[in-house]
Amino acid sequence: MDACVFCRIVEGKEPAQVVYQDEEVFAFKDIHPRAPVHILIIPKRHIASAKDLSQEDATLMGRLLLAANRVAEQLGLQGYRELIQVGREGGQTVFHLHLHLLGGPVPVW
Amino acid sequence: MDACVFCRIVEGKEPAQVVYQDEEVFAFKDIHPRAPVHILIIPKRHIASAKDLSQEDATLMGRLLLAANRVAEQLGLQGYRELIQVGREGGQTVFHLHLHLLGGPVPVW
Repeated sequence: MDACVFCRIVEGKEPAQVVYQDEEVFAFKDIHPRAPVHILIIPKRHIASAKDLSQEDATLMGRLLLAANRVAEQLGLQGYRELIQVGREGGQTVFHLHLHLLGGPVPVW
Repeated sequence: MDACVFCRIVEGKEPAQVVYQDEEVFAFKDIHPRAPVHILIIPKRHIASAKDLSQEDATLMGRLLLAANRVAEQLGLQGYRELIQVGREGGQTVFHLHLHLLGGPVPVW
């Protein structure tokens, strides 16, 4: 069994509320939402962390951001935040790169 | 005079503590830091908001993220957060697309 829970979700081996997918990108609801709208947007290919990106991944990462826009539009969000936590010291807990799409009241910094 | 303060910074017409630049990307210290390390990473080309990105901007946006990694490494950050606020309802206040690179204690969500 794949050790990575997000890889298992992409493969359909773990349940998730999928909101978007294309050839490279997959998006689903966070099961512990921290905002009224909280979607995780991930590359289908396993990349542990944004730290591990190479120059060749630039277009893929841009597509991740464009997918976030598309999902936000699909969900009718006027404004939103996009957050990537990098490394344990950056708050990352699942080591499959993911972008948090957050909609709802903006927290005070 | 260019109406956009970030465009003026890129052009050297406003002071800023520049930490990185290349052909497409520019990075400087936020003058109102919200974390021990707070860098703004922007495309040199004026794009008002992440909402305004087109498919053709995918690679540029990926390069922005890769530049964030480079700056983080340059500053010796082990972990960090990358945040894009999209639209006024997402907390965006300056309408030249920018990614916040934040280093230091991770806030509770």
